[in-house]
Amino acid sequence: MTERIREFLRRRTEDGPCVVVDLDVVRDNYEAFARALPDTSVYYAVKANPAPEILSLLAELGSSFDCASVGEIEMVLAAGAGAERISYGNTIKKERDIARAFELGVRLFAVDSDAEVDKIARAAPGSKVFCRILCDGVGAEWPLSKKFGCVPEMAPDVLEQAHRSGLVAHGVSFHVGSQQANLGAWDNALATAAAVFRETARRGIELKMVNMGGGFPARYLKDVPGVPAYGQAIFQALSDHFGNRLPETIIEPGRGMVGDAGLIEAEVVLISRKSADDAVRWVYLDIGKFHGLAETMDEAIRYPIRTARDGDETAPCVLAGPTCDSVDVLYEKTPYELPVSLSIGDKVLIEACGAYTTTYSTVGFNGFAPLASYVI
Amino acid sequence: MTERIREFLRRRTEDGPCVVVDLDVVRDNYEAFARALPDTSVYYAVKANPAPEILSLLAELGSSFDCASVGEIEMVLAAGAGAERISYGNTIKKERDIARAFELGVRLFAVDSDAEVDKIARAAPGSKVFCRILCDGVGAEWPLSKKFGCVPEMAPDVLEQAHRSGLVAHGVSFHVGSQQANLGAWDNALATAAAVFRETARRGIELKMVNMGGGFPARYLKDVPGVPAYGQAIFQALSDHFGNRLPETIIEPGRGMVGDAGLIEAEVVLISRKSADDAVRWVYLDIGKFHGLAETMDEAIRYPIRTARDGDETAPCVLAGPTCDSVDVLYEKTPYELPVSLSIGDKVLIEACGAYTTTYSTVGFNGFAPLASYVI
Repeated sequence: MTERIREFLRRRTEDGPCVVVDLDVVRDNYEAFARALPDTSVYYAVKANPAPEILSLLAELGSSFDCASVGEIEMVLAAGAGAERISYGNTIKKERDIARAFELGVRLFAVDSDAEVDKIARAAPGSKVFCRILCDGVGAEWPLSKKFGCVPEMAPDVLEQAHRSGLVAHGVSFHVGSQQANLGAWDNALATAAAVFRETARRGIELKMVNMGGGFPARYLKDVPGVPAYGQAIFQALSDHFGNRLPETIIEPGRGMVGDAGLIEAEVVLISRKSADDAVRWVYLDIGKFHGLAETMDEAIRYPIRTARDGDETAPCVLAGPTCDSVDVLYEKTPYELPVSLSIGDKVLIEACGAYTTTYSTVGFNGFAPLASYVI
Repeated sequence: MTERIREFLRRRTEDGPCVVVDLDVVRDNYEAFARALPDTSVYYAVKANPAPEILSLLAELGSSFDCASVGEIEMVLAAGAGAERISYGNTIKKERDIARAFELGVRLFAVDSDAEVDKIARAAPGSKVFCRILCDGVGAEWPLSKKFGCVPEMAPDVLEQAHRSGLVAHGVSFHVGSQQANLGAWDNALATAAAVFRETARRGIELKMVNMGGGFPARYLKDVPGVPAYGQAIFQALSDHFGNRLPETIIEPGRGMVGDAGLIEAEVVLISRKSADDAVRWVYLDIGKFHGLAETMDEAIRYPIRTARDGDETAPCVLAGPTCDSVDVLYEKTPYELPVSLSIGDKVLIEACGAYTTTYSTVGFNGFAPLASYVI
């Protein structure tokens, strides 16, 4: 909670829940990444929060951008960054979208299969491609499925196919999993990346780049290592596995860039019990899974919640959203401690909500408007 | 797949996935409910699909409406139904939203706690309220949590509180769970409702109405009982538990009204394998969990999928959406059988998608537009 956000909320007159992002925190985060990994290019993962003000600030600071679609590419261009600073990082692309990106000047594309290489060779001839490899994601809060990437043994084949098709086989990418708090995860992944470099070199193709993805945590309720610790661990792992021939490197922070820069203000709509002797209260907010807090799915992310009554005695409660949908419950398996004095109409502040809230919001489920967003 | 939808899709020129709903099927469904339960009022659950054309058709056919918010109430009024045909069925309401609904003419409200009764007594004096009771939901595809309703033993207290506050204690409601295929579920719930009627009468308050909620299934891959079978089972249970003093009854079909009236047309973006010896293909569509197919969460709903290559040999595949998000996978634990000949660029038709697709769509996650919707 920054002073600027506090001041903004004090003066806000509109009704309903909202997220407020403080650009000063985004700037600090960008600079922390740049300082911790001075030789690494930062590609902001636009999907985390594509607010135009955030994109413009990062463009101005010199950031590059990881885009998932032509829509995101257009947003980045509109924010003032050139196409040379864009990576089309989605391994799943329609050929006509690749063509459109190429037309807009994009020359860097992700792949994880021969079929995708073929599309890029046709629609974006001569471009650079990097091959995403599967990573086990041990230690991540949200271990990734096998959706993206191929097994490391297959990567040299995919890259060789790219090379033979007139593309530039540029490098490899991996993603250690979201909210990755285990610093060793990068070491394992970089060892694997180095093995792909060696095998590809053996085939006469010199790779140049390692895209280390995202996964840098925002601070929720658990303590997580800070950005400097990540930088040190990554630099050490790079030296260990690549020796004196360090590759160009890219990171793609999304949550790590904007997560702790924003908070959601919400309102308590109802507090009730299901029976006269129910030990746990139900607290219903005017925001839930369908309007910004989708990441509470399976109670994966536990947001810090502040109230004006903090310091009073607390008791556990089930926390739920306002829709007529039974899955719209935030914390039930592990009830949340909130002040006993909390009352209907009270405001609550949900912290570390700058990432994956506005974009995960539905268009208007149950007739409630999408999450209002302010970037200050 | 109706002939009208087939014809519409043949002539559609826009790019990207879309849902198409055929109003003729909605009309048939409405009439099937009206025939099966001639003495029961149909309150369409607007949240299932609030497309203006659907609301207008149902308003014209004489339907009433179950609304979750002031936003939905305004949509129903705009579609031409009067406020006397609206139930504000959400048990979680801000007091200022209750006041706004009252101002718009709404006089029927759901409650499940004393705190909600107090709000309605202040903001909508003299209105009718019904108390939602918890139901175990055995047999439902998506058993409901305890989010809505109080234990049946508490309902007479809540209704007595309403009566003492100058409201009309009108009845009780329950919801047997979504996609409820067990006809006995209604019998259990009606027995409980009758017990609440008796206890409330003992306290000198005569309830008049039972709101039997929704839960009527749409036809996905499993066979489910048709509407007439539901009607018969419900009528029998009403007679058994209420004898000659049958209450007014309400049902709130949402999925049962529009689910099978719509289908989604999508495109195959990529087909690949994760390793050279991978037994299962990955098939990526241009639609996934974030743009309409949220109900595949936990693989709960298994949509029927048609392709132009049906009849060819099939093999299992993992089915996934187009976003850079690892949770955007539709069917992985139980792979989906699709033709081996399926190719990148093929169209697929996902059936029974008329409910909970447009409204569950995000505002634009990953830069992809929300689900396009056509009602014909």
